[in-house]
Amino acid sequence: MSKSNRVWRLRERPIGNITDNTLSFEKESIPQPRDGECLFQLNYLSLDPTNRIWMSDEKQYMPPVGLDEPMRGIVCGSVLKSRTSAFKEGDIVSGIGTWSDYQIASAETVGLLGSVDDVSVMDAFATLALVGPSAYFCLLDIGKPKAGETIVVSTAAGAVGSIVGQIAKIKGCRVVGLTGSDEKCRWIKEELGFDEAINYKTSNLSHALSESCPNGIDIYFDNVGGAILDECLKLMNLHGRIPTCGLISQYNSQEPVPGPFNYSLVLMHRLKIQGFIILDYLERFPEANKAILEWMSEGKIKVRLDVQEGLESALEGVKKLYTGENIGKLMVRVKEI
Amino acid sequence: MSKSNRVWRLRERPIGNITDNTLSFEKESIPQPRDGECLFQLNYLSLDPTNRIWMSDEKQYMPPVGLDEPMRGIVCGSVLKSRTSAFKEGDIVSGIGTWSDYQIASAETVGLLGSVDDVSVMDAFATLALVGPSAYFCLLDIGKPKAGETIVVSTAAGAVGSIVGQIAKIKGCRVVGLTGSDEKCRWIKEELGFDEAINYKTSNLSHALSESCPNGIDIYFDNVGGAILDECLKLMNLHGRIPTCGLISQYNSQEPVPGPFNYSLVLMHRLKIQGFIILDYLERFPEANKAILEWMSEGKIKVRLDVQEGLESALEGVKKLYTGENIGKLMVRVKEI
Repeated sequence: MSKSNRVWRLRERPIGNITDNTLSFEKESIPQPRDGECLFQLNYLSLDPTNRIWMSDEKQYMPPVGLDEPMRGIVCGSVLKSRTSAFKEGDIVSGIGTWSDYQIASAETVGLLGSVDDVSVMDAFATLALVGPSAYFCLLDIGKPKAGETIVVSTAAGAVGSIVGQIAKIKGCRVVGLTGSDEKCRWIKEELGFDEAINYKTSNLSHALSESCPNGIDIYFDNVGGAILDECLKLMNLHGRIPTCGLISQYNSQEPVPGPFNYSLVLMHRLKIQGFIILDYLERFPEANKAILEWMSEGKIKVRLDVQEGLESALEGVKKLYTGENIGKLMVRVKEI
Repeated sequence: MSKSNRVWRLRERPIGNITDNTLSFEKESIPQPRDGECLFQLNYLSLDPTNRIWMSDEKQYMPPVGLDEPMRGIVCGSVLKSRTSAFKEGDIVSGIGTWSDYQIASAETVGLLGSVDDVSVMDAFATLALVGPSAYFCLLDIGKPKAGETIVVSTAAGAVGSIVGQIAKIKGCRVVGLTGSDEKCRWIKEELGFDEAINYKTSNLSHALSESCPNGIDIYFDNVGGAILDECLKLMNLHGRIPTCGLISQYNSQEPVPGPFNYSLVLMHRLKIQGFIILDYLERFPEANKAILEWMSEGKIKVRLDVQEGLESALEGVKKLYTGENIGKLMVRVKEI
């Protein structure tokens, strides 16, 4: 254990893109747990699109991170000292924490990651802590896919999208993925088994979607909003569903962003658009994690990590979510277990 | 029975507002029924916002009316001749027909209006043919109101909105109505029992909504889209529902209309937006009509008609839906029963 702590703090709310001035990296003292708390050392930090939401003071699903406060993150760490019966030294916990080497937690902010056979701690954390259950509940509870239906997934090579597509295949759907590079297209089609992959940056999206969805779209799994949502709306079948898991195209926007121009089709085609935040499903995590682990062990769900090395790389890393550089789940390895 | 027929035909698809050139009123011969059909005389014609949708060639929930074809409408008439076992002379039928004195129908386009005690044929048709079941299913099936929740209804003095508000009161909700004149506000509050009424034309809508909805909005029953939808979105509670029954603010638009600027709150507040077209519920009409008739007979649902006299007044009448001149259900009395 080192004698000091390293902490990323929010210094400026980003206007548009995250910059080097958004966060600062500080050397600080190591905090001490009080009754009911534990101290853990960060092993892995998950980088997620929702980090950008927390940096802003837009109306959102949790309080934003306060200025000069430690940056909030989805974390996995090892308990060093415990003053709560919920955890003991050596336990591996995951949940909501901060971007810092040493942190205080309680049973309200983290839980045991649990034992997972044949899967490394980092893979398990990367999949089970957030993105797997997000994909599982948002697709199955809101999208309600039926065998033979066509589903389009945006950010299909991303952490959630890649799992959504694979679960939809398990459920017997025709799966079309939208992503931003030919390499990502190859990956989701050849390795993950998507039926079609469209590079939205280089194709005529309207034309490519029509070609790939000859029977229209029954489910559009939205991670992005904006122009892609508008194109998909045009092809939605009657009673189509649009589970809305993210709107990443607009998180960086400095101007008011108009909703979809084809909004009237919500009425005409009796569509359902429903927003999803994983916080509503915390109690049902065991159900999702059991299913996902089984599918992983059967080889039906493959996971790919994009790993940054060292806590100092977190700020550079999170920017990649907005440039589309990452393939798969973006993670920071702070200290390998 | 007269010797000739009068028929409104669609001559120009309106660009923006409906004009005197949109439809023409023709004298024509009376059609004759073939096997499986009947001839009926029009008694009452319902004027509805959806008429404007049918006049356009935008993507919609039914084929649009073809140019030079008779204008489509929701109709109630008396059977004069029948060549189908479904109807006999003298039967009163209602369903989808045209804006003309004499029309051909079949069991696929109309049904018996049915007997309704203590309610005139025109009141029964006005309420049960379309707007009552629309209010009933869109509010209850999609909105799922719970006692104590706050619901905001747009076009609250309109045909559907006025019934939605009254059903929501029956279900124990706090009901706030938005409408466009002080007279309409008085009517929905004093006679229909809405808790609050807001004149959206003369008030600061954002401020008035906040005042009227101190606990936020659980259900926004949307008949209009546009700026009012955007204001309501800002106040929606977590897991709020937005049953979307109409988008009348944009039917006349000549430009692409942006969706709501506060669309990101769909995600942040896990809202459900779902489009509703009554055609999906035809088989369940008896359920709605039974409930509504009971509520009407108990005085819990009051209906107000805005009656135009004579088929020749139909074109002037339908324009009132877009100027907000009507209060209650807009109807044309063609020939009183």
